[in-house]
Amino acid sequence: MERTLIADCAERIGETVKISGWVKTRRDHGKIVFIDLRDRTGVLQCVVTPDTENYEELKRIRPQWTVDFQGIIKKRPEKLINQDLKTGSMEMEVKEFKILSEAQELPIDISADELGLHLETLLDFRNLTIRNEKVGAIFKIYAEVLRSYAEYLRSQGFVEIKTPKLLSASTEGGAEFFKVKYFEREAFLAQSPQFYKQAAVGSFERVFEIGPVFRAEPHFTSRHINEFIGLDAEMGFIHDSNDVMDMLEESMKHILTDVKKNCQDSLKLYNSDVEIPEKFPRIRFSEALDILRKEFGKEIEGNDINPEGERLICQWAKKKHGSDLIFLTNYPWTIRPMYIMPDPENPRETMGFDLLYKGVEISSGGQRIHQYEQLVENMKKKNLNPEDFSSYLEIFRYGMPPHGGWGLGSERIIQKILGLKSIKEAILFPRDVRRLTP
Amino acid sequence: MERTLIADCAERIGETVKISGWVKTRRDHGKIVFIDLRDRTGVLQCVVTPDTENYEELKRIRPQWTVDFQGIIKKRPEKLINQDLKTGSMEMEVKEFKILSEAQELPIDISADELGLHLETLLDFRNLTIRNEKVGAIFKIYAEVLRSYAEYLRSQGFVEIKTPKLLSASTEGGAEFFKVKYFEREAFLAQSPQFYKQAAVGSFERVFEIGPVFRAEPHFTSRHINEFIGLDAEMGFIHDSNDVMDMLEESMKHILTDVKKNCQDSLKLYNSDVEIPEKFPRIRFSEALDILRKEFGKEIEGNDINPEGERLICQWAKKKHGSDLIFLTNYPWTIRPMYIMPDPENPRETMGFDLLYKGVEISSGGQRIHQYEQLVENMKKKNLNPEDFSSYLEIFRYGMPPHGGWGLGSERIIQKILGLKSIKEAILFPRDVRRLTP
Repeated sequence: MERTLIADCAERIGETVKISGWVKTRRDHGKIVFIDLRDRTGVLQCVVTPDTENYEELKRIRPQWTVDFQGIIKKRPEKLINQDLKTGSMEMEVKEFKILSEAQELPIDISADELGLHLETLLDFRNLTIRNEKVGAIFKIYAEVLRSYAEYLRSQGFVEIKTPKLLSASTEGGAEFFKVKYFEREAFLAQSPQFYKQAAVGSFERVFEIGPVFRAEPHFTSRHINEFIGLDAEMGFIHDSNDVMDMLEESMKHILTDVKKNCQDSLKLYNSDVEIPEKFPRIRFSEALDILRKEFGKEIEGNDINPEGERLICQWAKKKHGSDLIFLTNYPWTIRPMYIMPDPENPRETMGFDLLYKGVEISSGGQRIHQYEQLVENMKKKNLNPEDFSSYLEIFRYGMPPHGGWGLGSERIIQKILGLKSIKEAILFPRDVRRLTP
Repeated sequence: MERTLIADCAERIGETVKISGWVKTRRDHGKIVFIDLRDRTGVLQCVVTPDTENYEELKRIRPQWTVDFQGIIKKRPEKLINQDLKTGSMEMEVKEFKILSEAQELPIDISADELGLHLETLLDFRNLTIRNEKVGAIFKIYAEVLRSYAEYLRSQGFVEIKTPKLLSASTEGGAEFFKVKYFEREAFLAQSPQFYKQAAVGSFERVFEIGPVFRAEPHFTSRHINEFIGLDAEMGFIHDSNDVMDMLEESMKHILTDVKKNCQDSLKLYNSDVEIPEKFPRIRFSEALDILRKEFGKEIEGNDINPEGERLICQWAKKKHGSDLIFLTNYPWTIRPMYIMPDPENPRETMGFDLLYKGVEISSGGQRIHQYEQLVENMKKKNLNPEDFSSYLEIFRYGMPPHGGWGLGSERIIQKILGLKSIKEAILFPRDVRRLTP
């Protein structure tokens, strides 16, 4: 008999079907055994009675065993309907079964609605904890973010590219690169596809990439991670950084709209209501400092806005503009990389921006310098040696249009949509300073 | 004035529009200058006459400068229509222009239909060569392969996942791993997402991943590369490896059908006609050896079929079954990894398969062992120490369904569709033993 998915059982009332999945829970009521069976589409209550073939063998069944159940799909009596379950109005009367694989005693219980585990335990037993519906839901939404991002950019004429993650030099400078032994040489893991996506603009004008990004910074925060999936994009023939922000804003709206529409069940598990602002406010970095000073009495030390400042600015944006998202524009020249276009009207500022979402920076971007001479000059001003960037500079010898783009952290979007405490919860098998397993 | 894309100019005959792009070529006919301008949608002939504003400055223009042209779109006289060009029946009479960026003298000519460059030159000047239409077309098809693969698997209930590329151990064994300095420890770059996608089956049943794969083998062939993009998939609750082959076959048909339908212009540049067989033949590995012996007089030395053997088997499949693709099934136990399910009817064979396309293996897959004890036993038979795989073995302690999957090389698909001599042509910025740049 062909397998029927649990979600499709509602259309098979009164029929004998075969379902397959994992035993989520078993409850014994005298001689009757109730088994909640989980497959990728849902959970169904299955009733085993002494009439079931090989009843005694079936009684051995424990959580996480995988089985085929064959039986009749029945409507439950009105008063026994489980309103919390999509399939709560029916059950299977099991006639036959087949054990596909057994499971040892579980080290943790994964059947609860809320696992309530310490982060490290949640990650140590990742093979098991991702089987929990609420944990699994994170990755269904994640897959939707990936799909939606690519779909939107394709609709805008962007070509999907894949660029190398092994580099010959620590291109963007800094000590944040992982070193690789590459045959008899040294190589570095890409910290971003920045230089390659810019080169690709020379051919395709508009490109995007979904790929891993490696950061060797020894962070121990709830929003940093050493390997994550970047959602990058770069576009040519722009007027200025507003074109880039427009495109990023529309991409984010598209993602949030799709998640809201297509992931209702998953969102419900987190009581998450995705709000999509009509327009993301855009304020200058210097204005943000003023707001922090005037509205919150916070004086920012150093050059950049700290995490607390980002939280407060988002609080302000929500209150003032009803928006969970806000662009900070015109970042100071001192804290932006050498390839970001200085503001022609004020060289102490740049055409670089950040996008904040619910208190956290989720994207950094801006207009790039597209003229060779200006780029060399900007490198020198930043005390960088243009010779160290000769391969990158080649791109600008042969006609690059005004262009810009962004890097967007996929996991932070999920973290913020669902209100996850740590970004690590939004990654199947996260890597941090201490963790390289499982 | 807003920019008009060149592909849209056909609908603007008689109107004044602004187009933007790269100068592909300039030809002087007395005082008249013909400029072929390229944007991401096509090439348009633009005519500059002494009537054009700032005519003298415009005459400085050289290949690969980026410009805005404003002018009238006109139909060309019947006898001057360029049949080779989609936009060959029209041209722009340039009225005004703006130079966006200049280009130095080009080290190579990239305007020809056929670049005819040596592979190393093609790759050394990659920033430029990807601007050539024929080279660029490779990556438009590539993007379609990525899109189509994901679309098909999603339609079959697969969840897209992203798994770590930094591993704590060289999980699958062997010396083919790149070592990474990971803070104070050693890590390895993932050679495949094998173990992680299997773990994910425990939650989602059906998963796929599009991501980089790193192979430290010092190959110097036209079909090997040290970093490539793998199209992986894994599915649970299968009957046997035929379910996996069915899914892979349908995925490949979907990809080829989409490429044929959506990439006509790009395919034409390569005179490539994509043939989609109704059914991919499936023959056993041992049958393949017989065919090589009987039909081609080739005796295979060693255990595996060599590249010549793969070519001949594909030749046979084309002649006998009219198919460019063929599955070889039941690979010998000795040459398949420890996680591949042995054939229950013949333990010297496995439920592992390869998929060949036009003479080259593009995919390897099979049913996996899903029982803990059998996996431990199989490791021991292969002289592997189960303790080295303790993290992997954990997955199988807690109920894994019968499952299987594949790894599919995205670049080899493109190489074979277009008949590219080297796989490196199918990668934007390829990495090999000698090459880490640009």
